[in-house]
Order: sequence, then structure tokens, then C-alpha cells
Amino acid sequence: MLTKAETSGQDIARLMAQIGRDARAAARPLAIASTERKNAALRAMADAIVANEKTILEANAIDLANGVESKLSPAMMDRLKLDPARIAAIITGIREIADLKDPVGEVIAAWDRPNGLKIERVRTPLGVVGVIFESRPNVTADAGALCFKAGNPVILRAGSDSANSSAAIHACLVEGLKAEGLPEAAIQLVPVTDRAAVGEMLKGLDGNLDVIVPRGGKSLVARVQNEARVPVFAHLEGICHLYIDKSADLDMAVKIAVNAKMRRTGICGSAETLLVDRAVANTHLVPILNALAKAGCAIRASAEVLTLYPQAEAATDADWTTEYLDAIISVTLVDGVGGAIDHIETYSSHHTEAIVAEDPAAVQRFFNEIDSAILLHNASTQFADGGEFGMGAEIGIATGKMHARGPVGVEQLTSFKYRVRGSGQVRA
Amino acid sequence: MLTKAETSGQDIARLMAQIGRDARAAARPLAIASTERKNAALRAMADAIVANEKTILEANAIDLANGVESKLSPAMMDRLKLDPARIAAIITGIREIADLKDPVGEVIAAWDRPNGLKIERVRTPLGVVGVIFESRPNVTADAGALCFKAGNPVILRAGSDSANSSAAIHACLVEGLKAEGLPEAAIQLVPVTDRAAVGEMLKGLDGNLDVIVPRGGKSLVARVQNEARVPVFAHLEGICHLYIDKSADLDMAVKIAVNAKMRRTGICGSAETLLVDRAVANTHLVPILNALAKAGCAIRASAEVLTLYPQAEAATDADWTTEYLDAIISVTLVDGVGGAIDHIETYSSHHTEAIVAEDPAAVQRFFNEIDSAILLHNASTQFADGGEFGMGAEIGIATGKMHARGPVGVEQLTSFKYRVRGSGQVRA
Repeated sequence: MLTKAETSGQDIARLMAQIGRDARAAARPLAIASTERKNAALRAMADAIVANEKTILEANAIDLANGVESKLSPAMMDRLKLDPARIAAIITGIREIADLKDPVGEVIAAWDRPNGLKIERVRTPLGVVGVIFESRPNVTADAGALCFKAGNPVILRAGSDSANSSAAIHACLVEGLKAEGLPEAAIQLVPVTDRAAVGEMLKGLDGNLDVIVPRGGKSLVARVQNEARVPVFAHLEGICHLYIDKSADLDMAVKIAVNAKMRRTGICGSAETLLVDRAVANTHLVPILNALAKAGCAIRASAEVLTLYPQAEAATDADWTTEYLDAIISVTLVDGVGGAIDHIETYSSHHTEAIVAEDPAAVQRFFNEIDSAILLHNASTQFADGGEFGMGAEIGIATGKMHARGPVGVEQLTSFKYRVRGSGQVRA
Repeated sequence: MLTKAETSGQDIARLMAQIGRDARAAARPLAIASTERKNAALRAMADAIVANEKTILEANAIDLANGVESKLSPAMMDRLKLDPARIAAIITGIREIADLKDPVGEVIAAWDRPNGLKIERVRTPLGVVGVIFESRPNVTADAGALCFKAGNPVILRAGSDSANSSAAIHACLVEGLKAEGLPEAAIQLVPVTDRAAVGEMLKGLDGNLDVIVPRGGKSLVARVQNEARVPVFAHLEGICHLYIDKSADLDMAVKIAVNAKMRRTGICGSAETLLVDRAVANTHLVPILNALAKAGCAIRASAEVLTLYPQAEAATDADWTTEYLDAIISVTLVDGVGGAIDHIETYSSHHTEAIVAEDPAAVQRFFNEIDSAILLHNASTQFADGGEFGMGAEIGIATGKMHARGPVGVEQLTSFKYRVRGSGQVRA
């Protein structure tokens, strides 16, 4: 791994351009590699990580020592840290990706024309994927293996904090590629930690980068979304809403509210705002807030909610647009499902919203009128996850409306083409 | 319609920003409008064009007179011209779009999870579509109606040549919207012909424009692809190949070659390069070239082809990357399907390629290894068309791999969201 001192901006531009060309050159052999060969390579990658656990842990120890020196926060140090259990999870993850159905070549639609032409729409790889991530070294393996399974060359750009750990894991992935005679450039790790390398990726590497997936905090995602000249699969934030309709079962509402907010507060599918139907303010509001408070959640309440639950803190306008990622929830009353929809369409980040209701008409309006990637009825917002959707591994969740939306798994990393079979047809 | 003299750059930036906000505000009422209401509005649009044919022809007469004054080419004048037959085709086109299945709300995938969650992926509108076109005034109606059917607000930017014709047609579309009480901003025509308006659209109208579709010549498409900060559905050019395998039926090869090149030479699906398997150079090449020449096609031949067909003109390197859009074809010999694939992956614009062959193994390689939007076997490249695919009206053909690829019809103008139904599930 080169460091900043060893490279200039021009060197980095040249280096990144070469990485882009190498990735593009790997696209065709990878696109036509058989499922068996790709899966064998994935299993060889997992085996290489098994064999090199000690090397990976030693590399991680260097990153951890550097992290102490550069005074990383305890949360950052935790993300950075590898141990045998975390390495075992990486290995399991790669083997699960090997077991996933290969999307490439799948016929997703087929129809015949009156003139006898037989048309098929089949999945193809998407192209070169760039993954820009921060401190979690496991992303090297997760993202590398997932892009590879879908037949896409991937360019991984690890954060400087995890540079040594990522390089050690990446070496194992390359071993797997070599074992099957597949191009090493199918999975590349950017060998410099200079931020200029990210800038080159955002510019698209002369057309050799087709999509960027940022994996990290809001500032990274915001930079990528603002500056990238290529498509981005990402969500900036998950301002997820839970709406309790007047038709809701109270016990269910309590259980779902506590889970949606408190199961894990730091994930994007965690609920940030609770909307309660004004019609049941007197029966449903206080039991739900009591349960949340008992679970350790701080309550930020609208003026009206405060009159019914004075122990809460007063919410400000900023609360409705804040992703706390913490044990805090904002609460307000709304006029039925219409009011909930208005609030959500005004403040949501269009990631995930849930309704608790027994009235099918309310559910139908909620499902029809809200334009978010994931809508749930009588279930926790924390199900917003590719694994929970049964899609297998995911590279992230997207809130954009182009190409991929919601969990981005192996299918979402594909494009398609048309195959048309005739028997001599010409056009009139 | 304001003219350049009446507006300044700042005025245009303000105007376009307002058009973007109005379009975004129309998105939700349009997204939730019922199929019946959208179809009734489309039929009212068609009826309004019937009723206003005279007004439209008068407006067109002004554009034609201006065209004479500004010395438009005969081809441009022809594209600009409306007559009762062309207006009838516009009316039929809108009514056919009314008859198309509504994609919005369609469940495109559904599955259940072991925990009882029922997951559906359903189509939603895509967002605000910008259409930038040149001289053909019918695009106003075609693109406006197609985007509207998919529930997308559309911002139409007509070329200055067709400004009056487009405005007259647009007024009829707005009549149809009003008849059903739908927001007039669902279909907006940019009321200035200043090129700065295009610049504002390329910048994305403060996030209020989700995708741009350029409809016009290569210079327009190139500008949009290079400068747009939002996704673009387009093809820059259609350098389409026809490969004649050694296993081809000669009669079929002759028939398909003449149709692929000569049926209409000016469309994107017209073949530009003929590749003939070296193994049948002595039997297949000359009959095919003779048939093309007899149909009025000029031949640009590689050195090797020239020795077999000396009456051709010598091809230069530039011929392999030229979209003639004219009665000219470039021809070279290749070593079987592998050679054809190499040539195509080197020179193609990844639009449409066809193989004539009886050998299934050759077809399979051609279909698997070429990364173009449309691949055909034993059929003319001129079938590269949404109507011929049975998709109904299309807004164009895309060669990008993100979201839409091949013919862009009403389905390709949608996104999707997930609807998840539970019975109180929380995540463990």
C-alpha cells in the first residue's frame, strides 16, 4: 500500500486511469465466466481467508495500533477491529454468496410476436462497480464477492484506517481469482489511501466506472452523491416513519414501535419519527411512549403531544428531518392516514415507512400514496434489509428511483439485454 | 412563446426552476390518478387535437414559413411539416397509448418469507422526465402522452424551428388534462426557445428533474450525454452489425442483409457493417454484395473483400466506427463467430447486432458474448423498435445499461417500490 508521501496528484490520476482500464478489460472474461467457475473462485477466496487468518489479524493489529495513535473514537475502533469470530462471519458471507443463484443469463421475460419472432429479456452484468468505504474491513470481502458473483469487475477503495486489513483480505480474494484463472483485475483494491483517488473515481475513470456504491457515514455518501459524474446506489439517510392508525391493535403497535426504534438504533431502518392518529391520541399515545421510555428511548414531542405526555422534551422543526441513529424518537399527532402521508411526503428520506392498522382502506392509501422504497404494514421498519427480504447479501439500500431501489443485492447489480430469435424475418 | 429578446439568462434560470417545482408538485396527484382517469385524459387530448387541427396547421404554417426564411434543409423541412395525415397519426398514437396497459401499480414480483411477511415489488412512476427534441412537432404529443401514461410529469423542450407547432399541440394536451381535473403541470412545454433553457435542464432543475430523454441528431444527444447531471435515456448512435456465419442459409442472408441495410437507411437500427465468415467468403460474399449494390447500396470493403469484389470502394479505419444513416455499408471478413464478436466488441455502439446462422453453437456464443442492447438471430436489425417488440409506443432506444436498455416504452419509464404485509412481526 503506497502512502500519500509516495504519490503525487498526477501519479494518482494515472494510476486510477489504469485501474479503470484494467477493470474494463476484465469485464468480458468475467461476463462470460460460467456459474461453476465463479462459484469455485468464491469458495477458493473463502478458503484463502481461512488459510490466512493469522496474516489478516496481524494486518488488522497494525491498523488498530495506527487507530490508537490517531485517536479514533471507540465506535470507529470497534468497526475496524477483526477477531476470529468476525473473520468467520466474512468466510460464511462469501460461501453464502457462492450459494446464491447466479443472476447472469437468467431470462426475466419472454414473449412471441405475431410474425414469429421470439423475444427474451436476459440478465447481464451491469459493468464496473466502484465501492468507496470507510473503516469496516469486511466490506472488502462482502462487496468484492457480491459484485463478482454478478459478473461485475469491482474497484474497492478502502478508508485509510483499514488499509492494511483490507489489503490482507483483498490478497485472499485475488488468490481465489487466480485459482480459477480469472483476471485478477476482476477485484481491485486501490493501493493508495490518498483522497484524490476518490476524486478520480467520482469523475468516472474515463468512462470505465459504471456505478459507485458508497458505504459509510452521511458525509461520505453526501460527497459521493453531490460530486459523482456516474450513477450512485445509496441512501443519504433513513428518516423512517412509523404511523399508528386509529384502527391499530394497541399491543401490536407497542411491540412494533419498541422494535422499530430500539432493536438497533444505529441502522438505517430504525424508526426516527412516530406518527399517531389524533383519533386515538387518548388511548394509544401514552402506552406507546411509556414503552419506548421504559426501553431507554428519549422522546421529542410536538406541542400537542407534550400536553398528553409532559415528561417528554419539546421537539423543534429540526427534529422532523433528523436521523438520530440513537435512542431518540420524535412524535407528533396526525389526522388519520391522510395526515400521516402528508407528514411523510414532507419529511421522509423515502427509505422505509410502516403503518400499524387493521383497516384495509388505510393500509391501501398508505401503500399507494407514499413514494418510499419500502412500505410495511403491521411489521417493524427494521426489516428493511436485503437478508430479511430473502435476497441474500446486499451491498446497501438505495433510495434513488433509477435502476436499483431498496436493498441492492446480486440481482440489482445486473442489467439486461434482448435476445431475439427469428427464421428469416425482415421488416415490412 | 417568448423569444430570446424577451428574456435574460437570469429570467430563464428562474423560469426553469419554477417549471421544475411545478412538475414536482404535479408528481403526487399524477402518481395516484386512476388508470381510468389517465386514459380519459389521453382520449380528451386526442379529441382536442381533432377539434384543433386547423389551429395546429396554421401554427405549423408559421414554422414552415420561418423555416424557409432561415433556409432549413429539405430534410429538416420535411421533419417539421404537418399535414392531415400526420396529425391523424398523432391522434392514433395518443389513443394507442390510452389503450396500453397501465404499468403503475403492477406487481412485478411477490414472495413470502418464512416469518410470514408477504413482500411485493410494484411499479411506480419514475419521476419528472425532461424531453429535449428538435424539429419533429409530433414528439410533443408522443413523448407527452407516454410519460403521462406512466404517471410521470414531463417537461418538453421543443426546438425553436417547431416552436409554434409544438405549442399548438401542447395546448391540446393541456385541454385533456383540464378535462379530467389533473394538474396542468403534468405536461409542460418550455415557453422559451433560448438554448439556456436546455442548459438549466441539463443541470437538473434543483433536483426536480429525474431523467432526460434527448430526441434528435447526434450533436444534441452528445451534448446531453456529456453535460447532463441527471441520468439520460438515449443512444448516441446505432453502429449495428450483421454477421453472416459459415452455417448461414445464403438466400436468407441475402434477404436479411438487404432489409437490414436498405429498408430505411436513416434509422438507428439500420445495419452499418456487414461481417462475413471467412470460411464462406467464396460462396456467400459476392451474392450478398451484389444484392446490396442492386438495391442501391454503396460498398466500403476491407482489402481482402476488395480482392473478391473489386468494384467496391476501399474502406478506411473510420468506416468501422461510422454510422452512415445512408445507403452505404462497410464489409469485412472475420474468422467465424469469435472473429465477429471481437470486431463487434471493438467497434459497436452496443445498440443492435444480428447473426444469420443455422449452427446453434454459433448463435449461442453470439448471444452470450456480445454486450449490446438487442441481439437478433436470423432476423433483420431493423426490428430494433419498441413497436416491433410489442411494447407499444417508445420514447426512444437506450444503449446505457442503467435502468432502461433497448426500446424505452411505458414500462421503462417506471420505477418500483416494495410493499410488505405483516401481522405484527418484529425483527429478532
